[in-house]
Amino acid sequence: MKVDKMGDWRRTHYSADINPELDGQEVVVFGWVQEIRDLGGLRFLILQDKAGQLQITIHRHKVAKEVVEKAETLQKQYSVGIKGTVKKMPKAPNGAEIIPNEMRIFSMSQQPLPLDITGRTKAEIDVRLDARTLDLRREENQAIFRVQHAALQAARNYLSEKGFMEVFTPRIIVSATEGGSALFPVVYFTREAFLAQSPQLYKEQLALDFEKVFEIGPFFRAEESHTRRHLSEFISVDIEQAFANAEDVMNVLEELIYHVCKYVAENCERELKLLNHTIEVPEVPFKRLTYREVLENMIHYVCKYVAENCKQELALLEHELEV
Amino acid sequence: MKVDKMGDWRRTHYSADINPELDGQEVVVFGWVQEIRDLGGLRFLILQDKAGQLQITIHRHKVAKEVVEKAETLQKQYSVGIKGTVKKMPKAPNGAEIIPNEMRIFSMSQQPLPLDITGRTKAEIDVRLDARTLDLRREENQAIFRVQHAALQAARNYLSEKGFMEVFTPRIIVSATEGGSALFPVVYFTREAFLAQSPQLYKEQLALDFEKVFEIGPFFRAEESHTRRHLSEFISVDIEQAFANAEDVMNVLEELIYHVCKYVAENCERELKLLNHTIEVPEVPFKRLTYREVLENMIHYVCKYVAENCKQELALLEHELEV
Repeated sequence: MKVDKMGDWRRTHYSADINPELDGQEVVVFGWVQEIRDLGGLRFLILQDKAGQLQITIHRHKVAKEVVEKAETLQKQYSVGIKGTVKKMPKAPNGAEIIPNEMRIFSMSQQPLPLDITGRTKAEIDVRLDARTLDLRREENQAIFRVQHAALQAARNYLSEKGFMEVFTPRIIVSATEGGSALFPVVYFTREAFLAQSPQLYKEQLALDFEKVFEIGPFFRAEESHTRRHLSEFISVDIEQAFANAEDVMNVLEELIYHVCKYVAENCERELKLLNHTIEVPEVPFKRLTYREVLENMIHYVCKYVAENCKQELALLEHELEV
Repeated sequence: MKVDKMGDWRRTHYSADINPELDGQEVVVFGWVQEIRDLGGLRFLILQDKAGQLQITIHRHKVAKEVVEKAETLQKQYSVGIKGTVKKMPKAPNGAEIIPNEMRIFSMSQQPLPLDITGRTKAEIDVRLDARTLDLRREENQAIFRVQHAALQAARNYLSEKGFMEVFTPRIIVSATEGGSALFPVVYFTREAFLAQSPQLYKEQLALDFEKVFEIGPFFRAEESHTRRHLSEFISVDIEQAFANAEDVMNVLEELIYHVCKYVAENCERELKLLNHTIEVPEVPFKRLTYREVLENMIHYVCKYVAENCKQELALLEHELEV
């Protein structure tokens, strides 16, 4: 089948904008077919766009023949445009549906899909990563990215308001910036170089010029790891401040975390609901421990753990641990 | 000499905040000694912080002995804190100076400095890069970074308002994303990988989920070059949009440039003055050329250049170019 061109069609509304107040108005919506329900004379399409989902209702005998024919070729995840009339419909998402007057199919998808886009049939992580684009269509995954965007906005706004300036430090460097972390070597023309594992040395130098700087971006650590949670490439949020001591820096970072949590809690209600997550906005200042307190806590924890879990071994050693 | 600790001192004002209205008020300022002028009984220090410069006036017989002694040891670029009283002084920067009551020296600088911090004695680029931290203290260089910060704020705000979501795509990749660009190889544990030269393939995939995405961050191109203006590592501002054609994308990018220019022109007056630069905010839409028009313009330009600059050669060839 030949696909259609977008031509002069432009989206007038996102799915989330369609509501009963638009009853009778002609709109153009774009998106991907999420679900198809065929009741003979009646066919429902659920169309997904970045803002959510929308019901398209096709009465076989009430819409143009061309629309009916196109609707019958549709498969899940086809990319389509629909020009149609909004109709109040209490049972539909947002209380309104669209009756199509024209339909354009922009691209088709291979069938069967590699995973169930609704997430009802769970897929293994390998399958999900192989079809990551489809996997990210799931509303929960979309929500995670939108929360990230909001958190970034909040972090940058907070730091900018506090007089921090955004900088970019080099990623390709000639030597390690921190002891103890392994580096990825880069072939830099005829020389060896490395990927930076932090902006450390550069941001320290820049603080001598700009006093308060921050950088948000990818950094690289080549530690071997046996867990999935240890990233070789990660996004770092890093600050440096002149004329400040450890307490001052802790204040900035605590308030940064407070501000980001507050902003996300207030601006991502829909996303947090989708993720079934509540953000507890922390109180500042956080509880602070001295180095000595951390050591004492750790020793206490280790002794308690050994006393409870190694009774046989302790008996063999005729030893009793004081917790 | 032993240096002082910051202790419980905290900056109350930046240099730019000191003005005649604060006359008589005690303040704490931090910064670096930019200039020292000694008139015997009177010593002027110009203190630089990230906001600008400030005059500190030390009357030998009017301030504490300890302050006089410390002031005599000062050299350019020493890092100092001053607790003092603001005094109206029409001739000083911002119309006010500070009479110090106490002084703390946080760190000393090696003398002589590798370059003239005022920029009056120009340094070669090699010297400047070797002492880049000092070089960036020059107000013109500070201004460049502040303009960059403002431009980033404007770009991110514009794109976020237009529904674009910030994303992070991988920098360590397994193959080239665009034909024709050379790649930097990375030793990725036991395998060969490459540094990404653009977010291209990833942002295209992400546009299928989020429709409008952008990324601002470092990318890498390994082209050999004979100019200083060709960067192997550069900061890319990149967008991708679904359900849009080339015209739509040009509209977004033109308006982005318009918005950034406008924001910087309105918010960086001091910086632009320092850089002796005026921003002409462009009108949107920009003049657009078809592919054919670009080719025709280029051919016309080349012919005109050859006709004007290669008269002897053309005579030898008995050839006349039609412009």
